[in-house]
Amino acid sequence: MAKLVLHADRLFPADKTTRDIARALYAHVKDLPIISSHGHTDPSWFANNELFPNPSELLLTPDHYIFRMLYSQGIPLEKLGMQPDGDPVCKVETNPREAWRRLAENYHLFAGTPSRMWLDWVFSEVFALDVSLEADSSDLYFDTMAEKLQTDAFRPRALFERFNIERIATTEDPLDPLVHHKKLQDDGWGDKVVTTFRPDNVLDPEYIGFADNLETLGKITNCDTGSYQGYLNALRHRRAFFKTMGATATDHGHVSAFTFVLTVHEAEALYGRVSAGTSTGEDAELFRGHMLMEMAKMSIDDGLVMQIHPGVHRSHNPDVRARFGLDKGADIPMQTNYVDALQPLLNTYGNHPDFSLIVFTLDETSYSRELAPLAGHYPAMKLGPPWWFNDSPEGMRRFREQTTETAGFYNTVGFNDDTRAFLSIPARHDVARRMDCGFLAKLVAEHRMNETEAFTIAHDLSYTLAKKAYKF
Amino acid sequence: MAKLVLHADRLFPADKTTRDIARALYAHVKDLPIISSHGHTDPSWFANNELFPNPSELLLTPDHYIFRMLYSQGIPLEKLGMQPDGDPVCKVETNPREAWRRLAENYHLFAGTPSRMWLDWVFSEVFALDVSLEADSSDLYFDTMAEKLQTDAFRPRALFERFNIERIATTEDPLDPLVHHKKLQDDGWGDKVVTTFRPDNVLDPEYIGFADNLETLGKITNCDTGSYQGYLNALRHRRAFFKTMGATATDHGHVSAFTFVLTVHEAEALYGRVSAGTSTGEDAELFRGHMLMEMAKMSIDDGLVMQIHPGVHRSHNPDVRARFGLDKGADIPMQTNYVDALQPLLNTYGNHPDFSLIVFTLDETSYSRELAPLAGHYPAMKLGPPWWFNDSPEGMRRFREQTTETAGFYNTVGFNDDTRAFLSIPARHDVARRMDCGFLAKLVAEHRMNETEAFTIAHDLSYTLAKKAYKF
Amino acid sequence: MAKLVLHADRLFPADKTTRDIARALYAHVKDLPIISSHGHTDPSWFANNELFPNPSELLLTPDHYIFRMLYSQGIPLEKLGMQPDGDPVCKVETNPREAWRRLAENYHLFAGTPSRMWLDWVFSEVFALDVSLEADSSDLYFDTMAEKLQTDAFRPRALFERFNIERIATTEDPLDPLVHHKKLQDDGWGDKVVTTFRPDNVLDPEYIGFADNLETLGKITNCDTGSYQGYLNALRHRRAFFKTMGATATDHGHVSAFTFVLTVHEAEALYGRVSAGTSTGEDAELFRGHMLMEMAKMSIDDGLVMQIHPGVHRSHNPDVRARFGLDKGADIPMQTNYVDALQPLLNTYGNHPDFSLIVFTLDETSYSRELAPLAGHYPAMKLGPPWWFNDSPEGMRRFREQTTETAGFYNTVGFNDDTRAFLSIPARHDVARRMDCGFLAKLVAEHRMNETEAFTIAHDLSYTLAKKAYKF
Repeated sequence: MAKLVLHADRLFPADKTTRDIARALYAHVKDLPIISSHGHTDPSWFANNELFPNPSELLLTPDHYIFRMLYSQGIPLEKLGMQPDGDPVCKVETNPREAWRRLAENYHLFAGTPSRMWLDWVFSEVFALDVSLEADSSDLYFDTMAEKLQTDAFRPRALFERFNIERIATTEDPLDPLVHHKKLQDDGWGDKVVTTFRPDNVLDPEYIGFADNLETLGKITNCDTGSYQGYLNALRHRRAFFKTMGATATDHGHVSAFTFVLTVHEAEALYGRVSAGTSTGEDAELFRGHMLMEMAKMSIDDGLVMQIHPGVHRSHNPDVRARFGLDKGADIPMQTNYVDALQPLLNTYGNHPDFSLIVFTLDETSYSRELAPLAGHYPAMKLGPPWWFNDSPEGMRRFREQTTETAGFYNTVGFNDDTRAFLSIPARHDVARRMDCGFLAKLVAEHRMNETEAFTIAHDLSYTLAKKAYKF
Repeated sequence: MAKLVLHADRLFPADKTTRDIARALYAHVKDLPIISSHGHTDPSWFANNELFPNPSELLLTPDHYIFRMLYSQGIPLEKLGMQPDGDPVCKVETNPREAWRRLAENYHLFAGTPSRMWLDWVFSEVFALDVSLEADSSDLYFDTMAEKLQTDAFRPRALFERFNIERIATTEDPLDPLVHHKKLQDDGWGDKVVTTFRPDNVLDPEYIGFADNLETLGKITNCDTGSYQGYLNALRHRRAFFKTMGATATDHGHVSAFTFVLTVHEAEALYGRVSAGTSTGEDAELFRGHMLMEMAKMSIDDGLVMQIHPGVHRSHNPDVRARFGLDKGADIPMQTNYVDALQPLLNTYGNHPDFSLIVFTLDETSYSRELAPLAGHYPAMKLGPPWWFNDSPEGMRRFREQTTETAGFYNTVGFNDDTRAFLSIPARHDVARRMDCGFLAKLVAEHRMNETEAFTIAHDLSYTLAKKAYKF
Repeated sequence: MAKLVLHADRLFPADKTTRDIARALYAHVKDLPIISSHGHTDPSWFANNELFPNPSELLLTPDHYIFRMLYSQGIPLEKLGMQPDGDPVCKVETNPREAWRRLAENYHLFAGTPSRMWLDWVFSEVFALDVSLEADSSDLYFDTMAEKLQTDAFRPRALFERFNIERIATTEDPLDPLVHHKKLQDDGWGDKVVTTFRPDNVLDPEYIGFADNLETLGKITNCDTGSYQGYLNALRHRRAFFKTMGATATDHGHVSAFTFVLTVHEAEALYGRVSAGTSTGEDAELFRGHMLMEMAKMSIDDGLVMQIHPGVHRSHNPDVRARFGLDKGADIPMQTNYVDALQPLLNTYGNHPDFSLIVFTLDETSYSRELAPLAGHYPAMKLGPPWWFNDSPEGMRRFREQTTETAGFYNTVGFNDDTRAFLSIPARHDVARRMDCGFLAKLVAEHRMNETEAFTIAHDLSYTLAKKAYKF
């Protein structure tokens, strides 16, 4: 079996001069606490602090980065232990040890991908494994990890401390009662785990269950969501409640970045149609566009930072959607316009000193053409880090190369891990810190920046910017 | 006259550590046989094994990469020996030696282009020339090459063996009788030279001569192409015939990647219009989109791998088109959508274990945004290599940098030379191998991959993946 | 206070072999005269040769690269000494020394941007400052620069000579009487400072004041701009007049690259509507598209080189526009199509030996996909250098990497500084020369080009190509 070694210089440029600078910069930031300002971990983990289940249920079946790659090479999801609605394509693997073997046998598929780097880090640093994952080491891996997962040192809170996480934000929708966050507060963990307000399911008329969601929203807030003003009030109530559970930000995952100004009368009439379920597709887009305006206005009032994450064609594969549900590795990025789409929002609120907007993209063509110029002008707007498919060494490099010259470093907001894979969080932040140090090292080696500045910026990118941008 | 030297380290990264790794990887793959799985060489060359004509007719006038660059700098095509329809702009050069001199005098225009690298390889490796091409060496070049071209060692089959080609695929349309491939089979060369089924001229209602083509298609298959079902049967017949001549793949060069599901009744009615010549432009697009669906269905039945090559505005310059015909260096890439365009096809057949689809692009913006995510999910889909304008060192580098992190290496299919320039085939594969080894070397030098894996992947990219993807 | 040092190797690749080649190439071109073929300096500076005002009015308030970055971080433009129309957001800073302090205190925002590199060059090379700009050195900077600006050595003509500028082109609109250029001719500076014909304000019906501009155009040319033919004649007159003031080129900054062929009758009718102010938005686009065709035709007649600079959403922020006017750092690039947009123009004139067209983009996705293939085919078309937001080290690198393999070096036109920041012109050309030498050095180090060729090309990119393309 091949050895598993995480090289101390991984991800640093090969050129010796540049690498030496990168090493020095990295030494300066590697032990900084983790600010996990945007992510999707399950708050019940930290609230209840129960043992994690077996390795497959922890690392394989919840991680769409992993199983989509196996699926793309012809391995049915059933073989990984995932249970479909309706008839399975083949026998469902019920033994997590055998599901794990599928990954082990096909681990070569991940060569050159960030998933490979994150997993190797988890194997080596979290579980102290010292051989590579392959068919021959599959059982060793499964046994070693399964055993450790039964120990207290591998409970969520112990790992949280071990990972040196200062604060983590989870993401919940407005209907969520946030009971886990309440428990965390009661346990004195309220500063460590906070929520984020993600209202897509009550802002997007095309969201499945939208009508029911409006009704529930009314009930839990005692607001009359039958009227537009009642609906806005209900949203204000929930934003305030989320703030009591530590929220400092909202997050919006609409299909596009479209924003639109409606008069109150137009908005009321449109709300009448969307809440009655009689709206057209065009109505839905107008409503989403208008509600981003309302969210911005509420952000100015209550101070929540607004995040926009557009441009994904969700569940592109209806067969997988029908059988396995959402988030099954079939979400595909789309071309995304910002310069026109965000103009109504930026024109109305983009100069306001109390507004803070963080914009993400999966369409890298917008980095140098639209996003860096917009963030390099509007006081309210900052650039989110490379996201999802671009949350990778080359993706991070392209982000810095294509945004820095126009927007600088200080119109960016540090790294987001954006993950539900809790064990990989330190690995992801480590990749970002290494890549940023490598980028800065190149600027220093090419005499485009002096070393003193590079040290300050490395610290800011690793820690300060995220804290400040997310008001942590 | 300057020396012509092909440096042993050409195209490898300059950093010494990285270069040493690249050298080792390249040594491991450089002598592997060539799998030329997609190209446009003339099968009559290999069937008849006749001597090639003079250097200009072999290397200059058939190669649109070369003459378009000269044309772009104001050199009329007539001066290169190309004969226009209608009045020439200037006296047509009838002496191939003088046409060659035009290239020699302007060879500096190709600095930094892949054509320069391919030609230098041909000059040095095939013709053993050891001075650079320039005005002063023009006659030496012409004489040396002309003389060698008259020898048996420069006949097509001798060069084929010398080039270490294991198998080459040519491309023919369904009306082609494939007589050259028959002769090749009779001569025991049937495994070495195979055809590819390229049915654009009978699938695209806007193809010049479409109506006549349908009629011919009917005649040669004894199917009634007056009816839609007869037309489909005729296509099935020809696919089966192409298979007997070694075909393992189809190829589709529609203007877009648009696919569309029609009912049988809709398809029959639409076929009625397009075959009667009464269709609109919208009809034509619908028909092309529908027929890609039918081709996919037939691929599942007969096992031919399906290739889609969209996104070219052909013959952008009507003056050159009218005077010199198609393929005269005026084909310009266009923005190309895949995420929506391919959804009908992928939703219907993308999960099928017997379907294999290879998708190409000239719009590099789709690499990280659409194509890698799609190939990283759908089992049927693989990514074709960088193509045409992107079949170049920087194009190859961008391809790997922008697709690997999401799709990995194993959702790609090795290199395609896609060329009619037979003599340059080894040079093109050599550039691809060198660039892939350089890319892998960087991953190794930056400790993003271990060396053992890199050796395996280098071999797979150079040889195994193409054989497997094309069922060679 | 930190030292300010411009390192001799700045911007060169860090790899030692490559850097040594870059140094040698740069030594060969660094002292070549500057050809400033496209820019926006004020001709009155050179005509009147008066002293420049204080540092803030020279370097801060006219440079939208600088103040937009400060604005993006929440610093009101009023604090930089800019006077709004209407009520200011805060007290307007009237002391230029205090405005300068804002820049000094926030100079870290520019880390990694080209503005930082250009300013440092100006501070070090023009003003001989040897400490970095920061809060503590703000007064030293202001005093040192203010004092020197009062000396004859810092008058415009003295700096022009010191900067080794061979010729500079300014940009004026057709209504400009060019009195400064006349004075320059009278003073024997007519070869040194020439104008460029920029007719947007009389070609674009949506330009503010268009109707008045047509009337003025008629008056100053004695042509009847009430008729379409009179309007064309007026344009011909002004082009001829601009030629007498040294113009060798026109420049067109329409919102898109759209071109369109109208018949004379259609054009006359359309002109009737646009000149009467009764045109629609569609009319305006058609008229702009048609007038680019007419401009091309006139270029063939009078020999002026035609430049097209499309794709900017001007004044994206209406609040800043209303209070501070145009060119206030809120111009945002847009996705821009060339393959369809330019086809009418290129089909009609692109093969003409007397036509010369230089095309620019802010949409880098078009480099490899559309612009390099078009320039690599049409004899009339050349690629302008990386422009505006892309006029930066990484932008220049991407330009060469994405255009050279298809268009070569000789379908490009050297560097444009495109600036109104006179003092930064040598710094900008120096960055371009360094980046081009670094790019060539990489090709040499990777044995993709021999060193002899690289020296020739470095010289051509730094000097010869611009002279030739702009007929200087």
